[in-house]
Amino acid sequence: MKQLEEYVRSIPDFPEEGIIFRDVTSVLQDADGLQLAVDTMQDMVKDLEFDVVVGPESRGFIFGTPIAYNLKKPFVLIRKKGKLPCETVSIEYELEYGTATIEMHKDSIKQGQKILIVDDLIATGGTTEAMIRLIESLGGEVVGIVVMIELAGLKGRERLKNYRLESAICYEGK
Amino acid sequence: MKQLEEYVRSIPDFPEEGIIFRDVTSVLQDADGLQLAVDTMQDMVKDLEFDVVVGPESRGFIFGTPIAYNLKKPFVLIRKKGKLPCETVSIEYELEYGTATIEMHKDSIKQGQKILIVDDLIATGGTTEAMIRLIESLGGEVVGIVVMIELAGLKGRERLKNYRLESAICYEGK
Repeated sequence: MKQLEEYVRSIPDFPEEGIIFRDVTSVLQDADGLQLAVDTMQDMVKDLEFDVVVGPESRGFIFGTPIAYNLKKPFVLIRKKGKLPCETVSIEYELEYGTATIEMHKDSIKQGQKILIVDDLIATGGTTEAMIRLIESLGGEVVGIVVMIELAGLKGRERLKNYRLESAICYEGK
Repeated sequence: MKQLEEYVRSIPDFPEEGIIFRDVTSVLQDADGLQLAVDTMQDMVKDLEFDVVVGPESRGFIFGTPIAYNLKKPFVLIRKKGKLPCETVSIEYELEYGTATIEMHKDSIKQGQKILIVDDLIATGGTTEAMIRLIESLGGEVVGIVVMIELAGLKGRERLKNYRLESAICYEGK
């Protein structure tokens, strides 16, 4: 059987020299790859008890929804600023160049709910850290983070050392 | 049992006066709502034979991925300009104000494949029509479109009259 890694297309020197871009679309556009990705991620958190799956726009939606559906959990969206129609909480955080703001609906999480964050990739962990702070500001407790790809060279795991982080594929580089 | 419509939050006069905004996040953030939405949409196309599920950024990802996963089909992304890392085809189309450009990877569909488009909502059908032209430019055959919400007053169905269109909820207005 093909390994999950074999479905990932790696693009050298994209978007700039020295970076290897890991493309998840090649996994998704293969029926077996999609099954394997979702099943692997789900399996990594099977011992966790949680109430809600949270996923960020837009590639977090891709893995978050099937996992929430399979496990019969609610799915809550984190979106970029200005896209959610009701009352929101927001957080601004630093990127390599400039800042970004992400939002959640105020009523999307109840005080004390246990949260699983699902995303496609973890790099520096900056966005994930912002998501955690946003969820915690609503009274949610982040009990785990599961991603398809971890770029270990960017040390996101160190930044999130107080949280359980699972990755289906871990690349040593950036 | 609660009907799917009851999970949709309707926001009057948003984003402008006279428009009722239909919010799908309230469906997703309820475990039963998510199950019912995916199951209903899937059921509406159960007689269709298709090879690939295609969904547009970003809310098409939400419904497209669980349906592709459940039916063991590939999931292909349509994204806004500049987000896909490999060679793409693109199409520019008119919005109410200005234009938008959407893209697909060139290798994401093979000549002659039968395609199901999954999205959250159909309004005027302008974006859907652009997606169809993009898929057809790659040699795909669109055999069906399934959405959670149809805003019938905007006449998307007329615009797409040569295609099979299924909607889980149909609102008369705009």
